[in-house]
Amino acid sequence: MQVDVYASVNDARPDGLLERTVIVIDVLRATSTIVTALAHGCRAIVPAETVRQAMRLQEPGDWLGGERFCQKISGFHLGNSPLEYRTPELAGKRVVLTTTNGTRAIRKAQTAYRVLAGSLLNASACAESALSAGRDIAIVCAGTHDVFSLEDGLCAGLLVRCLERLSGEPVGTNDFGRAMKLAFESAEHRLAETMLGCANGARLAKLGFREDVLFCAQTDRYGLVPALVDRTMVKF
Amino acid sequence: MQVDVYASVNDARPDGLLERTVIVIDVLRATSTIVTALAHGCRAIVPAETVRQAMRLQEPGDWLGGERFCQKISGFHLGNSPLEYRTPELAGKRVVLTTTNGTRAIRKAQTAYRVLAGSLLNASACAESALSAGRDIAIVCAGTHDVFSLEDGLCAGLLVRCLERLSGEPVGTNDFGRAMKLAFESAEHRLAETMLGCANGARLAKLGFREDVLFCAQTDRYGLVPALVDRTMVKF
Repeated sequence: MQVDVYASVNDARPDGLLERTVIVIDVLRATSTIVTALAHGCRAIVPAETVRQAMRLQEPGDWLGGERFCQKISGFHLGNSPLEYRTPELAGKRVVLTTTNGTRAIRKAQTAYRVLAGSLLNASACAESALSAGRDIAIVCAGTHDVFSLEDGLCAGLLVRCLERLSGEPVGTNDFGRAMKLAFESAEHRLAETMLGCANGARLAKLGFREDVLFCAQTDRYGLVPALVDRTMVKF
Repeated sequence: MQVDVYASVNDARPDGLLERTVIVIDVLRATSTIVTALAHGCRAIVPAETVRQAMRLQEPGDWLGGERFCQKISGFHLGNSPLEYRTPELAGKRVVLTTTNGTRAIRKAQTAYRVLAGSLLNASACAESALSAGRDIAIVCAGTHDVFSLEDGLCAGLLVRCLERLSGEPVGTNDFGRAMKLAFESAEHRLAETMLGCANGARLAKLGFREDVLFCAQTDRYGLVPALVDRTMVKF
Protein backbone atom coordinates (compact mmCIF):
# COMPACT_ATOMS: atom_id res chain seq x y z
CA MET A 1 0.00 0.00 0.00
CA GLN A 2 1.19 3.48 -0.90
CA VAL A 3 0.55 6.49 1.38
CA ASP A 4 1.70 9.79 -0.09
CA VAL A 5 1.57 13.13 1.70
CA TYR A 6 1.21 16.45 -0.12
CA ALA A 7 2.07 19.88 1.31
CA SER A 8 -0.96 21.44 -0.35
CA VAL A 9 -3.84 20.39 -2.58
CA ASN A 10 -2.03 21.94 -5.56
CA ASP A 11 0.97 19.65 -4.99
CA ALA A 12 -1.20 16.59 -5.56
CA ARG A 13 -1.85 15.90 -9.24
CA PRO A 14 -5.64 15.57 -9.60
CA ASP A 15 -5.27 12.35 -11.61
CA GLY A 16 -3.19 11.00 -8.73
CA LEU A 17 -6.19 11.35 -6.40
CA LEU A 18 -8.84 9.67 -8.60
CA GLU A 19 -8.28 6.08 -7.47
CA ARG A 20 -7.28 6.90 -3.93
CA THR A 21 -8.78 7.48 -0.53
CA VAL A 22 -7.91 11.10 0.22
CA ILE A 23 -7.57 12.45 3.75
CA VAL A 24 -7.82 16.24 3.84
CA ILE A 25 -6.23 17.94 6.86
CA ASP A 26 -6.83 21.47 8.10
CA VAL A 27 -6.03 21.17 11.80
CA LEU A 28 -6.44 24.93 12.43
CA ARG A 29 -9.34 24.78 12.14
CA ALA A 30 -11.73 23.47 9.47
CA THR A 31 -11.33 19.69 9.75
CA SER A 32 -11.07 19.90 13.56
CA THR A 33 -14.33 21.88 13.51
CA ILE A 34 -16.07 19.39 11.20
CA VAL A 35 -15.05 16.46 13.42
CA THR A 36 -16.20 18.28 16.56
CA ALA A 37 -19.52 19.32 15.02
CA LEU A 38 -20.39 15.78 13.91
CA ALA A 39 -19.30 14.41 17.30
CA HIS A 40 -21.78 16.75 18.98
CA GLY A 41 -24.85 15.82 17.00
CA CYS A 42 -24.59 17.97 13.89
CA ARG A 43 -26.15 15.93 11.06
CA ALA A 44 -23.96 17.09 8.18
CA ILE A 45 -21.45 19.76 7.12
CA VAL A 46 -21.73 21.12 3.58
CA PRO A 47 -18.35 22.54 2.50
CA ALA A 48 -18.54 25.71 0.40
CA GLU A 49 -15.74 27.59 -1.31
CA THR A 50 -17.19 31.08 -1.13
CA VAL A 51 -19.64 33.04 1.02
CA ARG A 52 -21.95 33.36 -1.97
CA GLN A 53 -21.84 29.60 -2.58
CA ALA A 54 -22.55 28.97 1.11
CA MET A 55 -25.69 31.09 0.95
CA ARG A 56 -26.79 29.35 -2.25
CA LEU A 57 -26.33 25.90 -0.69
CA GLN A 58 -28.25 26.82 2.47
CA GLU A 59 -31.62 25.02 2.78
CA PRO A 60 -34.40 25.84 5.23
CA GLY A 61 -33.23 25.01 8.77
CA ASP A 62 -29.51 24.97 7.84
CA TRP A 63 -27.07 27.10 9.74
CA LEU A 64 -24.22 29.02 8.10
CA GLY A 65 -20.70 28.76 9.53
CA GLY A 66 -17.26 29.93 8.52
CA GLU A 67 -14.51 32.50 8.67
CA ARG A 68 -12.54 35.00 6.68
CA PHE A 69 -9.26 36.26 8.21
CA CYS A 70 -9.96 33.90 11.14
CA GLN A 71 -13.15 35.81 12.13
CA LYS A 72 -16.82 34.83 11.89
CA ILE A 73 -18.51 36.01 8.70
CA SER A 74 -21.03 38.76 9.27
CA GLY A 75 -24.60 37.40 9.41
CA PHE A 76 -23.47 33.76 9.86
CA HIS A 77 -24.64 31.68 12.83
CA LEU A 78 -21.20 30.33 13.67
CA GLY A 79 -17.53 31.06 13.00
CA ASN A 80 -14.82 28.41 12.54
CA SER A 81 -14.03 27.66 16.19
CA PRO A 82 -14.56 23.99 17.09
CA LEU A 83 -15.56 25.09 20.58
CA GLU A 84 -18.69 26.83 19.22
CA TYR A 85 -19.82 23.62 17.53
CA ARG A 86 -20.34 21.78 20.80
CA THR A 87 -23.72 23.43 21.37
CA PRO A 88 -26.79 21.15 21.80
CA GLU A 89 -28.68 23.48 19.44
CA LEU A 90 -26.79 21.89 16.54
CA ALA A 91 -28.30 18.44 17.12
CA GLY A 92 -29.76 17.12 13.88
CA LYS A 93 -28.93 20.31 11.95
CA ARG A 94 -26.89 20.79 8.76
CA VAL A 95 -24.23 23.51 8.67
CA VAL A 96 -22.98 25.03 5.43
CA LEU A 97 -19.33 25.85 6.18
CA THR A 98 -16.93 28.07 4.24
CA THR A 99 -13.36 28.61 5.39
CA THR A 100 -10.27 30.06 3.72
CA ASN A 101 -8.42 26.80 3.19
CA GLY A 102 -9.94 23.59 4.55
CA THR A 103 -13.34 23.55 2.87
CA ARG A 104 -11.74 24.58 -0.43
CA ALA A 105 -9.26 21.70 -0.19
CA ILE A 106 -12.15 19.28 0.44
CA ARG A 107 -13.97 20.50 -2.65
CA LYS A 108 -10.81 20.32 -4.77
CA ALA A 109 -10.30 16.70 -3.66
CA GLN A 110 -13.85 15.63 -4.41
CA THR A 111 -12.92 13.62 -7.53
CA ALA A 112 -11.18 11.08 -5.28
CA TYR A 113 -12.50 7.58 -4.66
CA ARG A 114 -13.34 8.70 -1.13
CA VAL A 115 -12.64 11.93 0.82
CA LEU A 116 -12.21 11.87 4.60
CA ALA A 117 -11.58 14.74 7.03
CA GLY A 118 -8.56 14.20 9.25
CA SER A 119 -7.36 16.09 12.29
CA LEU A 120 -5.37 15.34 15.41
CA LEU A 121 -8.72 14.94 17.19
CA ASN A 122 -9.68 11.84 15.15
CA ALA A 123 -6.34 10.58 13.77
CA SER A 124 -6.56 6.89 14.75
CA ALA A 125 -10.18 6.54 13.64
CA CYS A 126 -9.33 8.27 10.37
CA ALA A 127 -6.38 5.96 9.69
CA GLU A 128 -8.54 2.91 10.40
CA SER A 129 -11.32 4.10 8.13
CA ALA A 130 -8.90 4.95 5.31
CA LEU A 131 -7.29 1.52 5.56
CA SER A 132 -10.63 -0.26 5.41
CA ALA A 133 -11.20 1.10 1.88
CA GLY A 134 -8.27 -1.05 0.70
CA ARG A 135 -6.98 1.64 -1.66
CA ASP A 136 -3.78 3.65 -1.84
CA ILE A 137 -4.05 6.79 0.26
CA ALA A 138 -3.24 10.44 -0.38
CA ILE A 139 -2.96 12.73 2.63
CA VAL A 140 -3.47 16.34 1.57
CA CYS A 141 -2.48 19.20 3.88
CA ALA A 142 -4.77 22.17 3.28
CA GLY A 143 -2.09 24.68 4.25
CA THR A 144 -2.74 28.41 4.20
CA HIS A 145 -3.25 30.01 0.79
CA ASP A 146 -1.37 27.04 -0.72
CA VAL A 147 1.60 27.48 1.60
CA PHE A 148 2.50 24.61 3.93
CA SER A 149 1.23 24.82 7.53
CA LEU A 150 3.16 22.95 10.20
CA GLU A 151 0.13 21.72 12.16
CA ASP A 152 -1.25 19.98 9.06
CA GLY A 153 2.14 18.37 8.45
CA LEU A 154 2.35 17.09 12.03
CA CYS A 155 -1.11 15.54 11.70
CA ALA A 156 -0.06 13.95 8.39
CA GLY A 157 3.00 12.49 10.15
CA LEU A 158 0.80 11.04 12.89
CA LEU A 159 -1.52 9.53 10.25
CA VAL A 160 1.42 7.89 8.44
CA ARG A 161 2.50 6.35 11.73
CA CYS A 162 -1.03 5.15 12.55
CA LEU A 163 -1.37 3.64 9.06
CA GLU A 164 1.96 1.82 9.43
CA ARG A 165 0.90 0.42 12.79
CA LEU A 166 -2.58 -0.63 11.72
CA SER A 167 -1.62 -2.08 8.34
CA GLY A 168 -0.48 -5.67 8.20
CA GLU A 169 1.71 -4.98 5.15
CA PRO A 170 4.64 -2.58 4.68
CA VAL A 171 3.51 0.95 3.81
CA GLY A 172 5.38 2.88 1.11
CA THR A 173 5.43 6.64 1.41
CA ASN A 174 6.92 9.59 -0.44
CA ASP A 175 9.79 11.66 0.97
CA PHE A 176 7.41 14.35 2.16
CA GLY A 177 5.49 11.74 4.16
CA ARG A 178 8.77 10.46 5.65
CA ALA A 179 9.71 14.01 6.66
CA MET A 180 6.32 14.65 8.28
CA LYS A 181 6.52 11.42 10.26
CA LEU A 182 9.98 12.41 11.55
CA ALA A 183 8.71 15.91 12.41
CA PHE A 184 5.73 14.48 14.30
CA GLU A 185 8.01 12.16 16.28
CA SER A 186 10.06 15.18 17.40
CA ALA A 187 7.03 17.23 18.40
CA GLU A 188 4.84 14.43 19.75
CA HIS A 189 5.30 15.29 23.42
CA ARG A 190 4.97 19.05 22.95
CA LEU A 191 2.23 19.36 20.35
CA ALA A 192 0.36 22.26 21.96
CA GLU A 193 3.54 24.29 22.47
CA THR A 194 4.70 23.58 18.90
CA MET A 195 1.32 24.56 17.47
CA LEU A 196 1.21 27.81 19.46
CA GLY A 197 4.64 28.63 17.97
CA CYS A 198 3.81 28.04 14.30
CA ALA A 199 2.34 30.62 11.94
CA ASN A 200 -1.38 29.82 12.24
CA GLY A 201 -1.23 28.95 15.93
CA ALA A 202 0.51 32.21 16.83
CA ARG A 203 -1.92 34.21 14.67
CA LEU A 204 -4.97 32.55 16.24
CA ALA A 205 -3.62 33.04 19.78
CA LYS A 206 -3.04 36.72 19.05
CA LEU A 207 -6.64 37.04 17.83
CA GLY A 208 -8.00 35.51 21.05
CA PHE A 209 -8.34 31.90 19.87
CA ARG A 210 -5.64 30.34 22.07
CA GLU A 211 -8.16 27.83 23.47
CA ASP A 212 -8.97 26.70 19.92
CA VAL A 213 -5.29 25.87 19.32
CA LEU A 214 -5.06 23.90 22.57
CA PHE A 215 -8.31 22.06 21.76
CA CYS A 216 -7.14 21.16 18.23
CA ALA A 217 -3.78 19.91 19.59
CA GLN A 218 -5.45 16.95 21.36
CA THR A 219 -4.96 13.56 19.70
CA ASP A 220 -7.73 10.96 19.38
CA ARG A 221 -10.35 12.82 21.37
CA TYR A 222 -13.04 11.57 18.97
CA GLY A 223 -13.57 8.19 17.32
CA LEU A 224 -15.51 9.34 14.28
CA VAL A 225 -14.54 10.11 10.70
CA PRO A 226 -16.32 12.64 8.46
CA ALA A 227 -16.58 11.44 4.85
CA LEU A 228 -17.79 13.26 1.77
CA VAL A 229 -21.04 11.76 0.48
CA ASP A 230 -22.93 13.69 -2.19
CA ARG A 231 -20.79 16.78 -1.55
CA THR A 232 -21.66 16.71 2.14
CA MET A 233 -19.49 15.63 5.08
CA VAL A 234 -21.28 13.07 7.22
CA LYS A 235 -20.30 10.63 9.96
CA PHE A 236 -18.79 7.58 8.29
CA MET B 1 16.72 37.74 11.04
CA GLN B 2 14.42 35.64 8.88
CA VAL B 3 15.43 32.19 7.62
CA ASP B 4 12.89 30.61 5.27
CA VAL B 5 13.14 27.11 3.84
CA TYR B 6 11.61 26.12 0.48
CA ALA B 7 10.85 22.57 -0.66
CA SER B 8 12.01 23.36 -4.20
CA VAL B 9 13.38 26.29 -6.14
CA ASN B 10 9.93 26.82 -7.68
CA ASP B 11 8.39 27.28 -4.22
CA ALA B 12 10.58 30.32 -3.60
CA ARG B 13 9.25 33.44 -5.33
CA PRO B 14 12.21 34.84 -7.32
CA ASP B 15 11.58 38.34 -5.91
CA GLY B 16 11.82 36.81 -2.45
CA LEU B 17 15.40 35.74 -3.18
CA LEU B 18 16.76 39.03 -4.57
CA GLU B 19 17.83 40.62 -1.29
CA ARG B 20 18.73 37.41 0.46
CA THR B 21 21.63 35.07 0.92
CA VAL B 22 20.45 31.83 -0.67
CA ILE B 23 21.75 28.42 0.35
CA VAL B 24 21.07 25.80 -2.32
CA ILE B 25 21.01 22.19 -1.10
CA ASP B 26 21.30 19.06 -3.20
CA VAL B 27 22.73 16.55 -0.74
CA LEU B 28 22.44 13.63 -3.20
CA ARG B 29 24.66 14.66 -4.80
CA ALA B 30 25.46 17.95 -6.56
CA THR B 31 26.24 20.25 -3.64
CA SER B 32 28.04 17.47 -1.75
CA THR B 33 30.13 16.95 -4.88
CA ILE B 34 30.90 20.66 -5.29
CA VAL B 35 32.01 20.94 -1.65
CA THR B 36 34.18 17.82 -1.95
CA ALA B 37 35.76 18.96 -5.23
CA LEU B 38 36.74 22.39 -3.86
CA ALA B 39 38.04 20.77 -0.66
CA HIS B 40 40.36 18.62 -2.77
CA GLY B 41 41.99 21.36 -4.79
CA CYS B 42 39.55 21.91 -7.66
CA ARG B 43 39.77 25.65 -8.50
CA ALA B 44 36.15 26.23 -9.51
CA ILE B 45 32.91 24.50 -10.49
CA VAL B 46 30.87 26.00 -13.31
CA PRO B 47 27.22 24.95 -12.97
CA ALA B 48 25.47 24.21 -16.26
CA GLU B 49 21.81 23.38 -16.86
CA THR B 50 22.23 21.19 -19.92
CA VAL B 51 24.87 18.98 -21.51
CA ARG B 52 25.01 21.36 -24.46
CA GLN B 53 25.52 24.36 -22.19
CA ALA B 54 28.24 22.46 -20.30
CA MET B 55 30.15 21.88 -23.53
CA ARG B 56 29.74 25.52 -24.52
CA LEU B 57 31.07 26.74 -21.16
CA GLN B 58 34.09 24.43 -21.28
CA GLU B 59 37.39 26.29 -21.73
CA PRO B 60 40.77 24.73 -22.59
CA GLY B 61 41.96 22.65 -19.62
CA ASP B 62 38.48 22.37 -18.06
CA TRP B 63 37.01 19.01 -17.21
CA LEU B 64 33.38 18.09 -17.77
CA GLY B 65 31.39 16.45 -14.98
CA GLY B 66 27.82 15.46 -14.40
CA GLU B 67 25.05 12.93 -14.58
CA ARG B 68 21.74 12.05 -16.16
CA PHE B 69 19.64 9.34 -14.48
CA CYS B 70 22.39 9.16 -11.80
CA GLN B 71 24.99 7.95 -14.35
CA LYS B 72 28.07 9.69 -15.81
CA ILE B 73 27.38 11.45 -19.10
CA SER B 74 29.06 9.77 -22.05
CA GLY B 75 32.32 11.50 -22.99
CA PHE B 76 32.56 13.43 -19.71
CA HIS B 77 35.63 13.14 -17.45
CA LEU B 78 33.64 12.67 -14.27
CA GLY B 79 30.15 11.71 -13.08
CA ASN B 80 28.41 13.19 -10.05
CA SER B 81 29.94 11.04 -7.31
CA PRO B 82 31.74 13.11 -4.66
CA LEU B 83 34.19 10.23 -4.22
CA GLU B 84 35.53 10.71 -7.77
CA TYR B 85 36.30 14.36 -7.07
CA ARG B 86 38.96 13.55 -4.48
CA THR B 87 41.58 12.84 -7.13
CA PRO B 88 44.82 14.88 -7.06
CA GLU B 89 44.48 15.33 -10.84
CA LEU B 90 41.79 17.94 -10.17
CA ALA B 91 44.17 20.31 -8.37
CA GLY B 92 43.91 23.79 -9.91
CA LYS B 93 41.40 22.67 -12.55
CA ARG B 94 37.91 23.99 -13.33
CA VAL B 95 35.06 21.52 -13.76
CA VAL B 96 31.92 22.37 -15.73
CA LEU B 97 29.19 20.39 -13.93
CA THR B 98 25.68 19.57 -15.08
CA THR B 99 23.29 17.54 -12.94
CA THR B 100 19.56 16.92 -13.08
CA ASN B 101 18.58 19.07 -10.11
CA GLY B 102 21.34 20.77 -8.08
CA THR B 103 23.18 22.75 -10.74
CA ARG B 104 19.85 23.88 -12.22
CA ALA B 105 18.69 25.12 -8.82
CA ILE B 106 21.94 27.07 -8.42
CA ARG B 107 21.45 28.76 -11.76
CA LYS B 108 17.80 29.56 -10.98
CA ALA B 109 18.86 31.20 -7.70
CA GLN B 110 21.58 33.32 -9.28
CA THR B 111 19.64 36.59 -8.96
CA ALA B 112 20.08 36.40 -5.17
CA TYR B 113 22.36 38.71 -3.21
CA ARG B 114 24.65 35.73 -2.68
CA VAL B 115 24.37 32.02 -3.52
CA LEU B 116 26.08 29.40 -1.37
CA ALA B 117 26.19 25.61 -1.77
CA GLY B 118 25.10 23.73 1.34
CA SER B 119 25.32 20.06 2.22
CA LEU B 120 25.60 17.99 5.36
CA LEU B 121 29.36 17.89 4.68
CA ASN B 122 29.78 21.66 5.25
CA ALA B 123 26.68 22.64 7.23
CA SER B 124 28.30 24.58 10.10
CA ALA B 125 30.68 26.47 7.82
CA CYS B 126 27.81 27.26 5.49
CA ALA B 127 25.64 28.62 8.32
CA GLU B 128 28.50 30.77 9.56
CA SER B 129 29.21 32.16 6.12
CA ALA B 130 25.53 32.91 5.47
CA LEU B 131 25.21 34.72 8.80
CA SER B 132 28.26 36.86 8.10
CA ALA B 133 26.47 38.45 5.13
CA GLY B 134 24.01 40.02 7.59
CA ARG B 135 21.02 39.43 5.29
CA ASP B 136 17.86 37.39 5.60
CA ILE B 137 18.44 33.85 4.36
CA ALA B 138 16.53 31.56 2.01
CA ILE B 139 17.37 27.86 2.10
CA VAL B 140 16.33 26.20 -1.15
CA CYS B 141 16.07 22.41 -1.40
CA ALA B 142 16.86 21.32 -4.95
CA GLY B 143 14.60 18.27 -4.72
CA THR B 144 14.17 15.88 -7.62
CA HIS B 145 12.33 17.20 -10.66
CA ASP B 146 10.76 19.84 -8.38
CA VAL B 147 9.51 17.23 -5.92
CA PHE B 148 10.77 17.41 -2.33
CA SER B 149 13.68 15.14 -1.38
CA LEU B 150 14.05 14.15 2.26
CA GLU B 151 17.86 14.41 2.41
CA ASP B 152 17.71 18.06 1.31
CA GLY B 153 15.06 18.77 3.94
CA LEU B 154 17.13 17.16 6.68
CA CYS B 155 20.12 19.31 5.69
CA ALA B 156 17.87 22.41 5.70
CA GLY B 157 16.74 21.49 9.22
CA LEU B 158 20.35 21.16 10.37
CA LEU B 159 21.15 24.56 8.82
CA VAL B 160 18.21 26.20 10.64
CA ARG B 161 19.49 24.79 13.90
CA CYS B 162 23.09 25.92 13.19
CA LEU B 163 21.84 29.42 12.31
CA GLU B 164 19.83 29.63 15.53
CA ARG B 165 22.82 28.54 17.57
CA LEU B 166 25.32 30.86 15.87
CA SER B 167 23.06 33.92 15.67
CA GLY B 168 22.97 36.23 18.66
CA GLU B 169 19.37 37.26 17.89
CA PRO B 170 16.17 35.21 17.61
CA VAL B 171 15.72 33.64 14.18
CA GLY B 172 12.29 33.68 12.54
CA THR B 173 11.49 30.84 10.17
CA ASN B 174 8.54 29.70 8.08
CA ASP B 175 6.51 26.60 8.93
CA PHE B 176 8.39 24.52 6.39
CA GLY B 177 11.66 25.45 8.12
CA ARG B 178 10.15 24.52 11.50
CA ALA B 179 9.07 21.14 10.10
CA MET B 180 12.51 20.43 8.63
CA LYS B 181 14.22 21.28 11.93
CA LEU B 182 11.91 18.86 13.76
CA ALA B 183 12.53 16.18 11.13
CA PHE B 184 16.31 16.62 11.43
CA GLU B 185 16.12 16.32 15.21
CA SER B 186 14.34 12.97 14.84
CA ALA B 187 16.82 11.61 12.31
CA GLU B 188 20.01 13.18 13.68
CA HIS B 189 21.42 9.99 15.16
CA ARG B 190 20.49 7.77 12.20
CA LEU B 191 21.19 10.00 9.22
CA ALA B 192 22.87 7.37 7.04
CA GLU B 193 20.10 4.82 7.65
CA THR B 194 17.39 7.44 6.99
CA MET B 195 19.09 8.55 3.78
CA LEU B 196 19.45 4.99 2.52
CA GLY B 197 15.69 4.58 3.07
CA CYS B 198 14.50 7.68 1.20
CA ALA B 199 13.76 7.85 -2.52
CA ASN B 200 17.11 9.13 -3.84
CA GLY B 201 19.21 7.18 -1.36
CA ALA B 202 17.49 3.91 -2.16
CA ARG B 203 17.78 4.57 -5.91
CA LEU B 204 21.49 5.39 -5.67
CA ALA B 205 22.21 2.34 -3.50
CA LYS B 206 20.45 0.15 -6.05
CA LEU B 207 22.59 1.63 -8.84
CA GLY B 208 25.81 0.84 -6.93
CA PHE B 209 26.33 4.22 -5.25
CA ARG B 210 25.74 3.15 -1.62
CA GLU B 211 29.14 4.56 -0.62
CA ASP B 212 28.13 7.94 -2.04
CA VAL B 213 25.06 8.02 0.21
CA LEU B 214 27.14 7.13 3.28
CA PHE B 215 29.76 9.75 2.35
CA CYS B 216 27.13 12.48 1.85
CA ALA B 217 25.49 11.61 5.20
CA GLN B 218 28.51 12.87 7.16
CA THR B 219 28.06 16.22 8.92
CA ASP B 220 30.73 18.92 9.01
CA ARG B 221 33.46 16.93 7.32
CA TYR B 222 34.64 20.07 5.50
CA GLY B 223 35.00 23.66 6.68
CA LEU B 224 34.62 25.40 3.33
CA VAL B 225 31.70 27.05 1.56
CA PRO B 226 31.28 27.26 -2.21
CA ALA B 227 29.84 30.60 -3.33
CA LEU B 228 28.67 31.72 -6.75
CA VAL B 229 30.95 34.44 -8.15
CA ASP B 230 30.54 35.38 -11.81
CA ARG B 231 28.40 32.28 -12.40
CA THR B 232 31.11 30.03 -11.00
CA MET B 233 31.25 28.24 -7.64
CA VAL B 234 34.48 29.03 -5.81
CA LYS B 235 35.78 28.62 -2.27
CA PHE B 236 34.42 31.50 -0.21
